[in-house]
Amino acid sequence: MTVNIGIIGAGMIGEAHALRITQELTGARISAVADVDEANAHHLVERLGGEAHVYESGEALIAGTDVDAILVTSWGPTHEDYVIAAIQAGKPVFCEKPLATTAEGCQRIIEAEIAAGRRLVQVGYMRRFDTGYRKLKAVLDAGKLGEALMIHAAHRNAEVPERYITPMAIEDTLVHELDVLRWLLDDDFVSAQVVFPRKTRYAHDKVADPQIVLLETAKGVRIDVEVFVNCRYGYDIQCQLVGEEGIASLPQPESLEYRQAGRLSTDILQDWKDRFADAFSVELQAFIDGTASGDIQGPSSWDGLAAAVASDACVKAQQSGQIERIELPERPAFYA
Amino acid sequence: MTVNIGIIGAGMIGEAHALRITQELTGARISAVADVDEANAHHLVERLGGEAHVYESGEALIAGTDVDAILVTSWGPTHEDYVIAAIQAGKPVFCEKPLATTAEGCQRIIEAEIAAGRRLVQVGYMRRFDTGYRKLKAVLDAGKLGEALMIHAAHRNAEVPERYITPMAIEDTLVHELDVLRWLLDDDFVSAQVVFPRKTRYAHDKVADPQIVLLETAKGVRIDVEVFVNCRYGYDIQCQLVGEEGIASLPQPESLEYRQAGRLSTDILQDWKDRFADAFSVELQAFIDGTASGDIQGPSSWDGLAAAVASDACVKAQQSGQIERIELPERPAFYA
Amino acid sequence: MTVNIGIIGAGMIGEAHALRITQELTGARISAVADVDEANAHHLVERLGGEAHVYESGEALIAGTDVDAILVTSWGPTHEDYVIAAIQAGKPVFCEKPLATTAEGCQRIIEAEIAAGRRLVQVGYMRRFDTGYRKLKAVLDAGKLGEALMIHAAHRNAEVPERYITPMAIEDTLVHELDVLRWLLDDDFVSAQVVFPRKTRYAHDKVADPQIVLLETAKGVRIDVEVFVNCRYGYDIQCQLVGEEGIASLPQPESLEYRQAGRLSTDILQDWKDRFADAFSVELQAFIDGTASGDIQGPSSWDGLAAAVASDACVKAQQSGQIERIELPERPAFYA
Amino acid sequence: MTVNIGIIGAGMIGEAHALRITQELTGARISAVADVDEANAHHLVERLGGEAHVYESGEALIAGTDVDAILVTSWGPTHEDYVIAAIQAGKPVFCEKPLATTAEGCQRIIEAEIAAGRRLVQVGYMRRFDTGYRKLKAVLDAGKLGEALMIHAAHRNAEVPERYITPMAIEDTLVHELDVLRWLLDDDFVSAQVVFPRKTRYAHDKVADPQIVLLETAKGVRIDVEVFVNCRYGYDIQCQLVGEEGIASLPQPESLEYRQAGRLSTDILQDWKDRFADAFSVELQAFIDGTASGDIQGPSSWDGLAAAVASDACVKAQQSGQIERIELPERPAFYA
Repeated sequence: MTVNIGIIGAGMIGEAHALRITQELTGARISAVADVDEANAHHLVERLGGEAHVYESGEALIAGTDVDAILVTSWGPTHEDYVIAAIQAGKPVFCEKPLATTAEGCQRIIEAEIAAGRRLVQVGYMRRFDTGYRKLKAVLDAGKLGEALMIHAAHRNAEVPERYITPMAIEDTLVHELDVLRWLLDDDFVSAQVVFPRKTRYAHDKVADPQIVLLETAKGVRIDVEVFVNCRYGYDIQCQLVGEEGIASLPQPESLEYRQAGRLSTDILQDWKDRFADAFSVELQAFIDGTASGDIQGPSSWDGLAAAVASDACVKAQQSGQIERIELPERPAFYA
Repeated sequence: MTVNIGIIGAGMIGEAHALRITQELTGARISAVADVDEANAHHLVERLGGEAHVYESGEALIAGTDVDAILVTSWGPTHEDYVIAAIQAGKPVFCEKPLATTAEGCQRIIEAEIAAGRRLVQVGYMRRFDTGYRKLKAVLDAGKLGEALMIHAAHRNAEVPERYITPMAIEDTLVHELDVLRWLLDDDFVSAQVVFPRKTRYAHDKVADPQIVLLETAKGVRIDVEVFVNCRYGYDIQCQLVGEEGIASLPQPESLEYRQAGRLSTDILQDWKDRFADAFSVELQAFIDGTASGDIQGPSSWDGLAAAVASDACVKAQQSGQIERIELPERPAFYA
Repeated sequence: MTVNIGIIGAGMIGEAHALRITQELTGARISAVADVDEANAHHLVERLGGEAHVYESGEALIAGTDVDAILVTSWGPTHEDYVIAAIQAGKPVFCEKPLATTAEGCQRIIEAEIAAGRRLVQVGYMRRFDTGYRKLKAVLDAGKLGEALMIHAAHRNAEVPERYITPMAIEDTLVHELDVLRWLLDDDFVSAQVVFPRKTRYAHDKVADPQIVLLETAKGVRIDVEVFVNCRYGYDIQCQLVGEEGIASLPQPESLEYRQAGRLSTDILQDWKDRFADAFSVELQAFIDGTASGDIQGPSSWDGLAAAVASDACVKAQQSGQIERIELPERPAFYA
Repeated sequence: MTVNIGIIGAGMIGEAHALRITQELTGARISAVADVDEANAHHLVERLGGEAHVYESGEALIAGTDVDAILVTSWGPTHEDYVIAAIQAGKPVFCEKPLATTAEGCQRIIEAEIAAGRRLVQVGYMRRFDTGYRKLKAVLDAGKLGEALMIHAAHRNAEVPERYITPMAIEDTLVHELDVLRWLLDDDFVSAQVVFPRKTRYAHDKVADPQIVLLETAKGVRIDVEVFVNCRYGYDIQCQLVGEEGIASLPQPESLEYRQAGRLSTDILQDWKDRFADAFSVELQAFIDGTASGDIQGPSSWDGLAAAVASDACVKAQQSGQIERIELPERPAFYA
């Protein structure tokens, strides 16, 4: 059985996903494309070299009989409506982050999904599918580190464009840690604080860079995440988990080792797409397989809500300078 | 278009390849299986969960109308006949190492392929498809290391079974370096010497272990390869290329970094199948894609011959204790 | 010229310093020893194998004509009086940390030293003499990292005895970072905050372990220091300096690299005395040379005060859970 | 007691040793200096800032009543006579490598020392005093690696001057490995072979560079040493010992770790004097202490002979292209 996937949003990320599904992954094809600009949709269909149907709207695509499952890769504010429409059509939907731009939007999705009676939503947090994070979780879950006590993390980009502003350090950047660390620890955040170190000369006017975000979990784990998006030297994701019995850190990406010009060195990646290339593939394959088997796994609507709530608290903490509480509603049994 | 692949030899490696093609790779299906023991073939078909046809012989399978391309994963001495039959049937054939058990056998395959007028054979040297080796070749080819001068390599296994005897250190183990280093350097071997260090207490009676193989290339590169198949600590592949402008070494496989029990450590793999898992996938996908496009790439029959000739010289050097010449016939323009 | 050194306090650290001066360093001898328990003093003289004079009190030793310079390695609360006495006798004095147990005590020492008209005091913060920290400072001062923005640090001990209680994480442990980071950055702390992660099961009742201390400097550098004194795996000092132009981290202590039992590993030290062995030697040699040349360098009384003030604020922050200000009086021109 | 040391040869290495003894080490002073150019001797005395006596000849210095022990740092061909004179004067003598320029010369020194009835000679092979090599030997001797089977080593210099010619790769460069590996393994060499890889474009006309030297020991250990003296990237000493139970490698020299400009890197030293700075100090302190205690340790005249015999065989192997035997005379009980 081949899963027919309709994709809403033919921008960079939509195209990347569509090419992956077409060229690398198994069990699915792109059968339909919609974009707010229909020319974009046609252009993507051409690049795919297949016979996908271009729909005039996301809603029409969702209703399409040649569409078994939907990928939502459109502009963030449109996510909520498309996801709810897909749920109501009874079709599995993979939604790029954010699930919705507000916690309330996430709640509405949750209600729709519960009403539908089965999991239909997978949110696009790809780090859970990264080999390194998976090994880290496996080691922790196997008890080899004892109880988790602390996490020291860093999320560094070489640079960001001028449109990147202070809250985006949370909403676009930290949000990946908000999801993956919660999953890694199997725990919920209860408070957030943000401190602003001296600003690098390389940051544009409208972004405080770097930032340090301090998180506390229900079990008492303390997390510090350095967010530094103009670090200049590369794209570098660090995560060190300190446990009672020892410490484990995320692997460095594989690199040749050089002895040259007075240095013993390895390469640091420059592009986040390279860093998580395999994770994107595993993530989308999981969605395809989940659609085929009727058992959607991976980050759920509930996880999407949790990320939204934590993200909101962090943005509030950026503004207040205070320690802000992070409070989730009670978790529905549906997501137990 | 889906490539229909027939597989001859339903043993461990045949099954691994078949599962890969079925579960991970795109563009192909296993349509037919043959094995000297038909029960094995049926068993493999069951494990694949598909509808492959079991043929009573490799020859019959090669002739099958539901077979576009052939995988030869049978017992080594049978390779030559199956490969020649596939060539004569005009069907692409992927042959596990060795291409043939003698240099003469490789020559006969070469003659058949030249007679067929196009490349149909890909030999199963997977290391050329490993990311690390590819990066090493890319760096060298880009001139970043200057001319290659030396290679220091090691091929270590934790242990080998009792049936593993001294020449297998060349024929089963070193043969991977013989292929990949020749490819890496774009050069041919001209001499080989083998020295036997003190034997480890952990080696069985019939194997001299470790061994050091010294190779010389036409361009004057000197290579030392430690072959140590009872090293006890893991499966470890080392390759350091020393150039005029600097040195580059193969990456360590990605691992968490631990601080625990007085040690800062990373894991060393235990199983060669894990070390080259991705390379096997890329290798087979290349064969599928080459079949589909009519353009077979990767290790050729000529490379299979080159490995056989070098391997023979190394075994002779094991026995003679002398420096043995490695002489290839003139390379046919067909393989230029 | 050989500097005659009198040592007050013949305990573990006093003995270690005395043996270093006698056996390893040049230009000095231990000429006199005093201890609250005279038997200890005699015992130390014996171990040194020399002819040091045992004085009945620290005051008498300070006044001794066979004493050119003094080492104060006695019980912390006695430091202030001995240091002031030495200053008043016009003799250089090396005082183990703390300089005094209160900021007021440090102030009194500062006044005495200013009154004496020349630097006579070196405080025993040995990390400034560690090769790794010196390289880090050299790289920063040379502008190779741009402006410092953040420091991520960790101070981990395998375990601590039962008498080690929560404030000692600041006063005995963090105090080394308080001195060395201030020196490294050439900057002053302005605030401190302490958060308590989930407690490790291996900590005794009276110590919250681990702790994370967050410091802010006048220039806006943000520092996080993990203090974890029952980490079990070893003695591990980490310091990563994040600058505008790049990041530099303290070296790992030199170790053989092992491939054994499935691991690629290096040793982690277990004993802090091994970690800073060379630093202690360089520190004491600097004191000897400073005494001989009349030019005492290294951590000054002012630095001792700064450490005391910062330490007090951190202990207050432990108790309050708030961000506490760190306010130094104006720096006297004497210490410019 | 202060050891009065007379130094013969006021060149670069003599000056470095004299400054070390004067400024860093304990228990000795430079009391006398001689040089074939008396002006050099006077110049060194000035630099030392002390009151050393300048002798008109090495022989006169050896006889001097203000000389307890001798350092021979003169031109290699003069070593033998000075060492024998020192032995005959009953004075401990530290002789820089080579002990003598021929094996016969070393034999004559051995006869003189045996006639004197006690060890008086320490040869200047400093690597035995390097912390890394000492740790490697300790681990091997403790049985943690099982029996030694192989050593892979490299000796790389960034560049060498034009006067450096092919045999110097053995006599000046490899000779350090010849001594330290024999000591490390507690074993003797029995054969040597030299192979010449393609020559680097950066080598001058009269030196074949790189070279690979293959050694075999009496216990069957096989050693390969890459000697590459125009490697351009730095001074790099590698030594990996492969044992039955695991592998241990010499530490990398301590360095900051940088994340900068797309690279994760550490520094590689450029100057051999930095690499073995501590070893030189420990070596000379051992000579001072041995002189004071009457118990000279470290590399003996016998070790000097062993290095000379192995070095001669390697040079012969360079010329012959053959495997050359290394045969030591029977070891006198005196050096057991």
